[in-house]
Amino acid sequence: MKAWRLKEFDQPLEYEEIPNPEIEDPTDVIIKIGGAGVCRTDLHLIEGVWDRALETPLPFTIGHENAGWVHQKGSSVTMFDVGDPVIVHPVASCGKCLKCRAGEDMHCENLVFPGLTDDGGYAEYLKTSERALIKLENGVKPEEVAPLADAGITAYRAVQRATPFARPGTMTLLIGMGGLGHIAVQLMREFGNSDIIALDTNEERLEMALEYGADHGVLAKDGMIDEVLNLSNNGNGVDLIIDLVGEDDTHANSMKMLKKGGSYFVVGYGGALHVPSLDIINNEFSIIGSLVGNYNQLYELMQMHAKGKVRLHSTTYPMSQANDVLKMLDEGKINGRTVLVP
Amino acid sequence: MKAWRLKEFDQPLEYEEIPNPEIEDPTDVIIKIGGAGVCRTDLHLIEGVWDRALETPLPFTIGHENAGWVHQKGSSVTMFDVGDPVIVHPVASCGKCLKCRAGEDMHCENLVFPGLTDDGGYAEYLKTSERALIKLENGVKPEEVAPLADAGITAYRAVQRATPFARPGTMTLLIGMGGLGHIAVQLMREFGNSDIIALDTNEERLEMALEYGADHGVLAKDGMIDEVLNLSNNGNGVDLIIDLVGEDDTHANSMKMLKKGGSYFVVGYGGALHVPSLDIINNEFSIIGSLVGNYNQLYELMQMHAKGKVRLHSTTYPMSQANDVLKMLDEGKINGRTVLVP
Amino acid sequence: MKAWRLKEFDQPLEYEEIPNPEIEDPTDVIIKIGGAGVCRTDLHLIEGVWDRALETPLPFTIGHENAGWVHQKGSSVTMFDVGDPVIVHPVASCGKCLKCRAGEDMHCENLVFPGLTDDGGYAEYLKTSERALIKLENGVKPEEVAPLADAGITAYRAVQRATPFARPGTMTLLIGMGGLGHIAVQLMREFGNSDIIALDTNEERLEMALEYGADHGVLAKDGMIDEVLNLSNNGNGVDLIIDLVGEDDTHANSMKMLKKGGSYFVVGYGGALHVPSLDIINNEFSIIGSLVGNYNQLYELMQMHAKGKVRLHSTTYPMSQANDVLKMLDEGKINGRTVLVP
Amino acid sequence: MKAWRLKEFDQPLEYEEIPNPEIEDPTDVIIKIGGAGVCRTDLHLIEGVWDRALETPLPFTIGHENAGWVHQKGSSVTMFDVGDPVIVHPVASCGKCLKCRAGEDMHCENLVFPGLTDDGGYAEYLKTSERALIKLENGVKPEEVAPLADAGITAYRAVQRATPFARPGTMTLLIGMGGLGHIAVQLMREFGNSDIIALDTNEERLEMALEYGADHGVLAKDGMIDEVLNLSNNGNGVDLIIDLVGEDDTHANSMKMLKKGGSYFVVGYGGALHVPSLDIINNEFSIIGSLVGNYNQLYELMQMHAKGKVRLHSTTYPMSQANDVLKMLDEGKINGRTVLVP
Repeated sequence: MKAWRLKEFDQPLEYEEIPNPEIEDPTDVIIKIGGAGVCRTDLHLIEGVWDRALETPLPFTIGHENAGWVHQKGSSVTMFDVGDPVIVHPVASCGKCLKCRAGEDMHCENLVFPGLTDDGGYAEYLKTSERALIKLENGVKPEEVAPLADAGITAYRAVQRATPFARPGTMTLLIGMGGLGHIAVQLMREFGNSDIIALDTNEERLEMALEYGADHGVLAKDGMIDEVLNLSNNGNGVDLIIDLVGEDDTHANSMKMLKKGGSYFVVGYGGALHVPSLDIINNEFSIIGSLVGNYNQLYELMQMHAKGKVRLHSTTYPMSQANDVLKMLDEGKINGRTVLVP
Repeated sequence: MKAWRLKEFDQPLEYEEIPNPEIEDPTDVIIKIGGAGVCRTDLHLIEGVWDRALETPLPFTIGHENAGWVHQKGSSVTMFDVGDPVIVHPVASCGKCLKCRAGEDMHCENLVFPGLTDDGGYAEYLKTSERALIKLENGVKPEEVAPLADAGITAYRAVQRATPFARPGTMTLLIGMGGLGHIAVQLMREFGNSDIIALDTNEERLEMALEYGADHGVLAKDGMIDEVLNLSNNGNGVDLIIDLVGEDDTHANSMKMLKKGGSYFVVGYGGALHVPSLDIINNEFSIIGSLVGNYNQLYELMQMHAKGKVRLHSTTYPMSQANDVLKMLDEGKINGRTVLVP
Repeated sequence: MKAWRLKEFDQPLEYEEIPNPEIEDPTDVIIKIGGAGVCRTDLHLIEGVWDRALETPLPFTIGHENAGWVHQKGSSVTMFDVGDPVIVHPVASCGKCLKCRAGEDMHCENLVFPGLTDDGGYAEYLKTSERALIKLENGVKPEEVAPLADAGITAYRAVQRATPFARPGTMTLLIGMGGLGHIAVQLMREFGNSDIIALDTNEERLEMALEYGADHGVLAKDGMIDEVLNLSNNGNGVDLIIDLVGEDDTHANSMKMLKKGGSYFVVGYGGALHVPSLDIINNEFSIIGSLVGNYNQLYELMQMHAKGKVRLHSTTYPMSQANDVLKMLDEGKINGRTVLVP
Repeated sequence: MKAWRLKEFDQPLEYEEIPNPEIEDPTDVIIKIGGAGVCRTDLHLIEGVWDRALETPLPFTIGHENAGWVHQKGSSVTMFDVGDPVIVHPVASCGKCLKCRAGEDMHCENLVFPGLTDDGGYAEYLKTSERALIKLENGVKPEEVAPLADAGITAYRAVQRATPFARPGTMTLLIGMGGLGHIAVQLMREFGNSDIIALDTNEERLEMALEYGADHGVLAKDGMIDEVLNLSNNGNGVDLIIDLVGEDDTHANSMKMLKKGGSYFVVGYGGALHVPSLDIINNEFSIIGSLVGNYNQLYELMQMHAKGKVRLHSTTYPMSQANDVLKMLDEGKINGRTVLVP
């Protein structure tokens, strides 16, 4: 089959012919890709950012945001039949370790992460395990929902964990209205009861955020900190921030916009957080890293999607144009999410 | 009366005659000081560290860790009689704002903090409000318990918030076995079911920690990170850290010793935390600032003390020697806590 | 002033001239009544049902769901001025006991409950304390919001506590679409992400429930249990029930409609619950009593109301017609809530 | 092999020769029984009590509290080798359904429960699945720990869920100091910070409870309700009850001994709970059914046991004497727990 291979850091992917994946374990499932989402993490992988944390296995196929159809299945797979349309949770977790048994697939001690630590979905076929799959509702096409498999559940997990702080009478700031942010704002509208400020560098995205449920849009520019403070708690700051960007300045600015007792969820990454401990303790800040959601969170998100409570702003491109799409993403030319299709 | 006055930052206190405090509001209570604990925050106040956060009101009397006897009371005070021995919660909170009504005295919108924002307890008398007082059990002397009013409830709040993470089979690291740490280790033994590593620069304090319930003592020196990692989760790090020191290197080292999914409670302060957001999100770290406990936490701590579950390691000095004691504290010559007595 | 007095159980109230309430404590506030809601608990008081639990103090003025204007205030009242429009939390709590300090006004050890244990709001004036008051937003009239003071926060507290169970993909059953129920359904729509079944004996109320956000309406009649089971989890039952009626048969039926692991919130009362403990443990049922909400819950509800997220279905009658309104309520002739106005 | 078969309700078991269990699925494991605990649920099974809830599959082998050694294993079993000493979680859960993925093995949608719905451990060999097993620490014998597999984790789960209510200054009542109770009292001493009252009909068991950490022992007899009330909160009742008996009178008495705002955990079963809803709501009681613990709770309990924090009071009998032991249990002649050994 054809697959996009990362062979060297900081180089474009190469579109090559490689052998199809094969069933080895009784729990294995081969998925025919119907949609593979393009994510900023793909750029970070190419840049080598993840090598330190997860030892990127060059050369390999990237793509961790997948949906498609069951193509082949191992002997112990009972919940799916060949041909079933499915969305693919990004990791294949073992189901036996204490973390899996507590529901936390991302903390599995035997984690396989197709697209990060093993071959992913920028290809015709993908190997994963039965435990990663959720059947799509009738009439839902894989390409329509692929971004929920990663962008979606990353936003979902952060919003779900943040919801207890988004009480009536509070103010929430969501930083970054891109692929994750435009989902986060819809979920926060559904889960929380805070007023919501959306912050972005792009006016078009702010308008979309207001349509999706934000109460205020603030353009990221000089003076934005005062603008946020003026909107919130008589100048005392926001009760809750979800930072979907994670650069040096979003970290630094967040520490200036957060109210005493406030919570700062870090979802985007790339920069570094620097803060005096006097500020952390005197303000009783909570700074909480949030990763991709687990399987049950994907299930719940699919329920929300099925009821029309979350809409995806996405565009499809042919799989053959993966490098072009990555370039556009790097240049900030993409609104919402992009999905590669066969 | 005589009181120790901070008149200028970075200068020794001056022991002066000032007017006695007087009842103004119906909820006011004047306490005759029986014991005033000496805290590292007093050193930070003298250094001017708190000026940025709380506008230190020079000149004023420091001392925020107090116990004594009710000396005079306002007309609406119903729960105490003149002569009652009491411990003094460090803040006088309004009882009317939403934060007070949620139990969070330290987040009161009308906070008065004797010893930080108003005259404190390095004196013969202290003015506070009825809402700050808890009556001592029969036979308990104010000087014996004064450190519970601040060091005690600061440790208590952090340990209580951390307890859900200290499950059987986990490993907890407590950094700093001084005034707060020697209480924290006892409380963690009572509340949690983790194995406990105590970390300190001083061997004598580590021995005390082992007596108080730590399972392992690690001396802070080169190689200590590996020593901690070897003790915990097959080298994967500790599940929980409570940092009672809060300097640059305890922050940095904590980020290296914490396991994926771990929680880092910041209680001590003075340094700065610097961490890449990739580490925060990929490890799903939670970094949680924890301040002085609230009134109900002081009540609960007094219950624990009354049952002998928490012992205080403290030494008394005459009030007239406040400056000498502060110097000893600054030079690291004090184990446990010091209490100034009349 | 004129006030409606309960002089003997099971007898109509009497409309009599009694002395105006007067300021005694510095925290006292006299409210000029703008609206006094009529509640099923008023009927239960007249029937003597509450005598066993709270020692009803005959003769006295009933009415525990009040809003109005500050008429006089004690010397230590700082947050309100004479003339301010306010809603009145139903209890005057002491603010000093451990329960108050944990935010739980209804569990105050020194509780005064106007309308149940002291003179209430079926009158021209009502005495309460500063701690019970919340100022109304500009343009909001007391008579429009009075029912939020009791029916509203009772529904709010139950829904808030139940929300963690109302996850996407679950089914919630709300029993009783009257004064509390029509608020509960709106709050559940805002707080939870369950599908909602509304159950009532009255078709008109079911239609209102569907408008307010219920997904399904089920008429209480023979076969209703099967109807609910068919709607939920492949016949396995609903995940969550909030019972706003609380009669023998709603208790018994709830035990038949609840799914394994489900939660049953009891809010209405009057009947008795009877259930074998094998069912409780094998199904891991949680049966949770829920009372009037606390002050902070009233604050949050007022925020929701101010944003138009909760509408009240209410009708006003002159104060002089209290007995007539109580009769109509007893006969099931009232939809939503009724408010007595001056 | 020989196995004890339940062939007819209300009749003694029969000790018969039946075929050995065999590996069918790749995840199957055959355990050679080293110890099979005898539980009151075995009596209830024989009485037919469970038939309504779980359709008892006569004839079959009872015994759901097992430990032993891995005898044979299926092809996908990776965590265990033949000969490994293991404790057996009572249910074989599927690991794929939403409940399993949330960690709740007992709520598995494809539950197999050896000893209740399939052949159990009153036999030489038992078939279960890899997901049910936990390896024993070096030197621990199966017969020493078998009761932890059911009595242990049932007590563990209840105490763990109850712990948030067992704060310093509260009073907890544990009803029944038998097989579950003597474990519950030790766990409550470790997890909670309440004072503990143990209640039992037997003085010897009360003495054991005091040794294991109870603060007070109350003999179940006339006047016991007053005795409990006098010990607790100035007569206002206990904050928390864990009822390990579950008969009509323990249910009824609990409703009289519980404080306003209190929690009542139902663990034992057999009787019925009857309570007016006015009492439930006015007191804001929570009545919570608690079942066998999940796998992670068994893991944690084994950690507690390995540290000597939980001791088992147990006696061994030869497997051939199962019927005699069941008779003794029925007659109340057993203290602690009994284990059948090969």
